[in-house]
Amino acid sequence: MKLIATFISTLFLSGSLFAQSPDSLIIKSIYDEALGKGHAYSNLEYLCKKIGPRLSGSQNAQKAVDWTKKVMEDYGFDRVYLQELMVPHWERGAKESAYILEGKSKIPVRIAALGGSIATAEQGLTAPIIEVMNFQELRSLGESGVKGKIVFFNRPFDNRLFDPFEAYRGAVDQRSQGAVEAAKLGAVGVIVRSMTNIIDDNPHTGGMRYEDGVTKIPAAAISTKAAELLSQKLRMTKASPVRLFFKQNCRTLPDAVSYNVVGEIRGSVSPEKIITVGGHLDSWDLAEGAHDDGTGITQSIEVLRMFKSLNIKPNNTIRAVMFMNEENGLRGGLKYAEIAKQNQEKHIAAIESDHGGFSPRGFTVQESPSALAHIQKWTHLLAPYKVTELIPGGGGADIGPLKTAVPGIVLIGLKPDSHRYFDIHHASSDVFENVNKRELEIGAASMASLIYLIDKYGVQ
Amino acid sequence: MKLIATFISTLFLSGSLFAQSPDSLIIKSIYDEALGKGHAYSNLEYLCKKIGPRLSGSQNAQKAVDWTKKVMEDYGFDRVYLQELMVPHWERGAKESAYILEGKSKIPVRIAALGGSIATAEQGLTAPIIEVMNFQELRSLGESGVKGKIVFFNRPFDNRLFDPFEAYRGAVDQRSQGAVEAAKLGAVGVIVRSMTNIIDDNPHTGGMRYEDGVTKIPAAAISTKAAELLSQKLRMTKASPVRLFFKQNCRTLPDAVSYNVVGEIRGSVSPEKIITVGGHLDSWDLAEGAHDDGTGITQSIEVLRMFKSLNIKPNNTIRAVMFMNEENGLRGGLKYAEIAKQNQEKHIAAIESDHGGFSPRGFTVQESPSALAHIQKWTHLLAPYKVTELIPGGGGADIGPLKTAVPGIVLIGLKPDSHRYFDIHHASSDVFENVNKRELEIGAASMASLIYLIDKYGVQ
Repeated sequence: MKLIATFISTLFLSGSLFAQSPDSLIIKSIYDEALGKGHAYSNLEYLCKKIGPRLSGSQNAQKAVDWTKKVMEDYGFDRVYLQELMVPHWERGAKESAYILEGKSKIPVRIAALGGSIATAEQGLTAPIIEVMNFQELRSLGESGVKGKIVFFNRPFDNRLFDPFEAYRGAVDQRSQGAVEAAKLGAVGVIVRSMTNIIDDNPHTGGMRYEDGVTKIPAAAISTKAAELLSQKLRMTKASPVRLFFKQNCRTLPDAVSYNVVGEIRGSVSPEKIITVGGHLDSWDLAEGAHDDGTGITQSIEVLRMFKSLNIKPNNTIRAVMFMNEENGLRGGLKYAEIAKQNQEKHIAAIESDHGGFSPRGFTVQESPSALAHIQKWTHLLAPYKVTELIPGGGGADIGPLKTAVPGIVLIGLKPDSHRYFDIHHASSDVFENVNKRELEIGAASMASLIYLIDKYGVQ
Repeated sequence: MKLIATFISTLFLSGSLFAQSPDSLIIKSIYDEALGKGHAYSNLEYLCKKIGPRLSGSQNAQKAVDWTKKVMEDYGFDRVYLQELMVPHWERGAKESAYILEGKSKIPVRIAALGGSIATAEQGLTAPIIEVMNFQELRSLGESGVKGKIVFFNRPFDNRLFDPFEAYRGAVDQRSQGAVEAAKLGAVGVIVRSMTNIIDDNPHTGGMRYEDGVTKIPAAAISTKAAELLSQKLRMTKASPVRLFFKQNCRTLPDAVSYNVVGEIRGSVSPEKIITVGGHLDSWDLAEGAHDDGTGITQSIEVLRMFKSLNIKPNNTIRAVMFMNEENGLRGGLKYAEIAKQNQEKHIAAIESDHGGFSPRGFTVQESPSALAHIQKWTHLLAPYKVTELIPGGGGADIGPLKTAVPGIVLIGLKPDSHRYFDIHHASSDVFENVNKRELEIGAASMASLIYLIDKYGVQ
């Protein structure tokens, strides 16, 4: 252990040991460019402040398509084009309202319809509300305990889990599947505790689904602060049942035309071989989609911009892809893979940034120990920038479909520090102001550096 | 490389490999406690929101002394006491005002007097202003170019430097020494570009000094946004000289009585041997001193609280120290070391948290390769919590004087991610809302875990 520990610290300390290698010099020039003359932050500001929320099918989503296309054209990328696809088109409609009704008191609480949910009746829905922590507890109540009621799923994140994504995965079934499970027992509506580590008053929306043959009931997220209050009321007033009123008029329109936006720098040696870097262009409608996933979008564009600006001529074609519809359909990711398969494209690797624009800690490599071992050989080149966790893990939702569509492709995810992510995830607080300029820029530089190495040396 | 890289990734992946060791179980219980039942965040909220800014000598500094003492008494620590000392007592007075004067136009800009500066005359100071980037450029202008003028030091952070603290060290001479160097050439005032990576409209204050025999002239920090504007004006209007008006009525009062606050859990085997954990209780007056250094204070208290709560009985005495007056005098750190020397106390190690409450990345060990090698043996125990950078570096300002006062002591600094630090450093934006709960808690757990190991195994 001691020898290895010492070696690890030597890695951290002595950039100088490697400073003479051409690769380390080029990588340094990439970080210098991102941190000293980067465009990612100002591009993100535009996307967040001039365009804003951009749910699939919305006018803003189309504005984001037009704008990112223009940005990449203005940078002079070799080819910029759209991939047409159909996307779900769900609209929130007017702002939701909700009240805890207890005797004569009426306490307003903050909710947000879950994406894909149906509306309540126009006058809203009022019913007794019952709290459960999971589907097992729900089922133990049986139809007699659930019928005609609103089910309140209130299982919190387990904050002890070091990785907040693990806490998310441990709670999100309530949001995605809660309406189906509750409806099976005759519930008339569902309220789900927001998927977040913190207690605040922002409802966090997110996708949910219905199931054929099961009655569709309206579903909404409630802020964690209101969830705590509601739970307290339910525990304190066993005698007179607590009711909830909520009203939402969201609706699903026919599928709409939309686009992935693709920019390319053509490979100088093997232009037919492709390395993809991307994020998703759509966002939930409650905020600016800054960390989710404006950062991934602007970082991906920045990778190509820096290659051009630094006159790095890749051997293979580097593609920045703005995927459409990650949040409520994944149609963009599916379309991109479909076209790749159809055209028998040769893909070396795809790298996705969709875990927020936070301080990068490493990369995750999906189901390829050989590629992982290959990438780990570059540890000494990335360690000066604290990108040290090169570990197995998922690549990302949008690039996922490439795995089967293009055999042999290596899927890689940028892995930033994750502790702040669920504070703002799918909530009105996911705004530009919560992105740090340096953290965003270092993410772009880290992806560009990895792509530079993969382009030069291959990935397995 | 490959073998070692694989080994590193194995470390990250397989907490399970080590999960059976009693040490790893205790460390897990510490992180569980901090993340699941921690008090650091609510304590920080109190310190920031109920007390707020607490510059040495102020009423609020005394409130912070009283409150932290009470908090530690309420937790039932074995001994809680004060160390009396005298501190500088500087007051900002009324809010500063400043204008760029150009022909008939008068553009307001945001400034903040530097800590320790004298006031301007009551009616303010108006003079031609000249921009320089460093002392060499200043001196090249000679007395003829400087006399009667306000000197504007405008050398920005070099954002390409990966470590923002390096950028800070590369710019801060302008703030600390600028007034002396300018006054030597007859300048009547000094305006210094704020020490920050970002462009915003918050002036960032900080310490400055005068020199015996050199005229004292007033000095203030200007926001980076205003600095850019002022620089532009100076470049554009060579013909009609730009003047600046500024007014501040800060003053230095006689030294005041204040205190370090110390809490102890007594060692069960060697109570005479001490491990210190601390941060500084004072803060600049512009904001809540959340990251600087409310986080260090509440983390240090949390270390002891968790030891008690988890029934971890240390062999040696563990001390939480709230140092007074780090920002403009270091009198608390000096007093603590003086008392330690006077009483011939036996100190094993001291750990300081004063780089903000951000996501921890490791620890720096000061001038002790043997202690560093010893600590690196614990890499596998800390790696599951991503505390992987165990490297040489400074311990911290407040514990610094212990190095000579108590020979043999090992000084250690908590090293959090540093990219956000100078966005808020010494500015009105250093508030509770900019601290993430999990990041703060993980810092406390990381310090507690390291102290647990040092207490059990020694440190060299």
